[in-house]
Amino acid sequence: MGEFDIIKRYFSFGLNAAHSLHPEIITGVGDDCAVLDGAVLSDAGKLCVTTDTLVEGVHFFKDMRPEALGSKALAVNLSDLAAMGAKPAFFTLSLVLNDAHATEGFLKPFSEGLRKKAQEAHDMVLVGGNISRGEEFSITITAFGYAPRPLLRTFSLTHSSKALILVTGTVGGAGLFVEHGYGRVTLSPGETRSVQETFEYPPARWDFAREAAPYCLAAIDISDGLYGDLRHLLGLGLKASLKDSALPLHPVLKDLRTLTLEEKLRLALFGGCDYELLLISRTEPEALGPLFEVAHKTGTPLTVIGALEKVQGAGGLIELTDAHGQPLCVKGTAFEHF
Amino acid sequence: MGEFDIIKRYFSFGLNAAHSLHPEIITGVGDDCAVLDGAVLSDAGKLCVTTDTLVEGVHFFKDMRPEALGSKALAVNLSDLAAMGAKPAFFTLSLVLNDAHATEGFLKPFSEGLRKKAQEAHDMVLVGGNISRGEEFSITITAFGYAPRPLLRTFSLTHSSKALILVTGTVGGAGLFVEHGYGRVTLSPGETRSVQETFEYPPARWDFAREAAPYCLAAIDISDGLYGDLRHLLGLGLKASLKDSALPLHPVLKDLRTLTLEEKLRLALFGGCDYELLLISRTEPEALGPLFEVAHKTGTPLTVIGALEKVQGAGGLIELTDAHGQPLCVKGTAFEHF
Repeated sequence: MGEFDIIKRYFSFGLNAAHSLHPEIITGVGDDCAVLDGAVLSDAGKLCVTTDTLVEGVHFFKDMRPEALGSKALAVNLSDLAAMGAKPAFFTLSLVLNDAHATEGFLKPFSEGLRKKAQEAHDMVLVGGNISRGEEFSITITAFGYAPRPLLRTFSLTHSSKALILVTGTVGGAGLFVEHGYGRVTLSPGETRSVQETFEYPPARWDFAREAAPYCLAAIDISDGLYGDLRHLLGLGLKASLKDSALPLHPVLKDLRTLTLEEKLRLALFGGCDYELLLISRTEPEALGPLFEVAHKTGTPLTVIGALEKVQGAGGLIELTDAHGQPLCVKGTAFEHF
Repeated sequence: MGEFDIIKRYFSFGLNAAHSLHPEIITGVGDDCAVLDGAVLSDAGKLCVTTDTLVEGVHFFKDMRPEALGSKALAVNLSDLAAMGAKPAFFTLSLVLNDAHATEGFLKPFSEGLRKKAQEAHDMVLVGGNISRGEEFSITITAFGYAPRPLLRTFSLTHSSKALILVTGTVGGAGLFVEHGYGRVTLSPGETRSVQETFEYPPARWDFAREAAPYCLAAIDISDGLYGDLRHLLGLGLKASLKDSALPLHPVLKDLRTLTLEEKLRLALFGGCDYELLLISRTEPEALGPLFEVAHKTGTPLTVIGALEKVQGAGGLIELTDAHGQPLCVKGTAFEHF
């Protein structure tokens, strides 16, 4: 099975859709470059571009089902598009395949999972890519979307104003699955399935984010863990206060008797891989009201987990308090590759 | 040295240039996505997107100098932009780094080589990317450029018309360096330096290609080898005739006494890694004249290596003949990863 056979057999989907749903795509897979019509792009809003790589044994366990993997490889990029309030449009795919993966048995379900996820995401089109041989299996996707008004990470607060910190969905579930995978936590089969689902099929928040964008000051996805990613949003002179009881723990994590509260909070704050959105919103009802309406309309769980305020000095602090307002100390570090 | 330190220290170049030379870039490195202004894209022509991966031990030898590697990782993508007649604009970078590469000693010269190549290519801007840990070092770049009139691979010929096949630069030099690297050919230090230069610093043909585009029917880069890539251009009912003496062999390959003519032709046709352009042009002087003028103006060696004609039946044939018109048989296969 040659490189071009693989592309033709498994990765040539979406070309028909291109002509009806995506008039901006002049050529897709099969030329030196994909070619996009700037005039159509111009009408569609700002073009947002993101890229994410999944490496076997680093971002996923070797036994992850190919279909789930194909789905997740695109989903992690969709999460970045959602964090900009962008509508998914098209993507490129670069694969480094070894002998175990350059097979029908792997490529067929993998490409099926990818195709299905692409269809769910407004019929995203695969416009190009690259297949290389290597020892270590990895997947790099570069995804493109349109945002009428992109939700940046940078924003400013006046000294008198406060802002709220919100998060979609639940946190700590994907991190719990990873802990279980490494044998550091014991879960029942039902609990395992639940957190595995969370890990393998991250939620799709782009429809919510696109409509929520006008009511938010900033957004970020929390793939590296809520704590670390919140820190990325804290510019000069900002302080975040979180309430432990407000954190929307994944139900399996919440009910787990074998972990202490501190261990649970550690997974919620530092576990990573949740691919939920962290939003900053103004406190005024004109902002919060519509935001929760959009959440309701799109079936998106949305929780206020804390507040943000301008402080004297450099700021950059994150304080966690319990129900009585007492400071809690949860040790951990944001996920970093090095 | 964390992931974000690495990005800040080595891969945050080009942001200043973004604001003056690239008004389309609203945000670059540092947010969930890069954001591009569709209105500016619209004025700049069609947007061309390409992606290429280099894997250590597969696309380059482990001892390749970091600076040359940084340069080449971008150059292989520039070659695809050139094949569309596109002007380079910006790119994203995804690195999978192992312990040997997540070091100052590697990243500093690597990023320098990358930055220098980006500057040469119309001050391309690095707008985003991803750094992951892995065992196997690889580099994936997605590059973007603008083409007023993209040079596609698809074209048609009438039954009465002929077209010429042209190639830029020389062929077989990069393939010879690879053979030398595997110890299958012995070269002097001077010869080695010359083909190493060809392998590590592929020529930049985008300025030529951009101006040449109106006078060509189609173009492709010959990174997988002249023969295999020419085949990609042969649609239904087309036959290519090449003359062995017309092939512009790399000077070191041409003068080498230890290889037979057949071995030299094999490297020229199947060696790969040359990153030159193969062009199809009409035979009329109105097309050929301006094409050679553009070649002269941009200092681009350009050689007619054969002709293309419409034949009965499926076509897809490539015939190679010697000076006496006798068919030559050169065994080889186009480069394929699998």
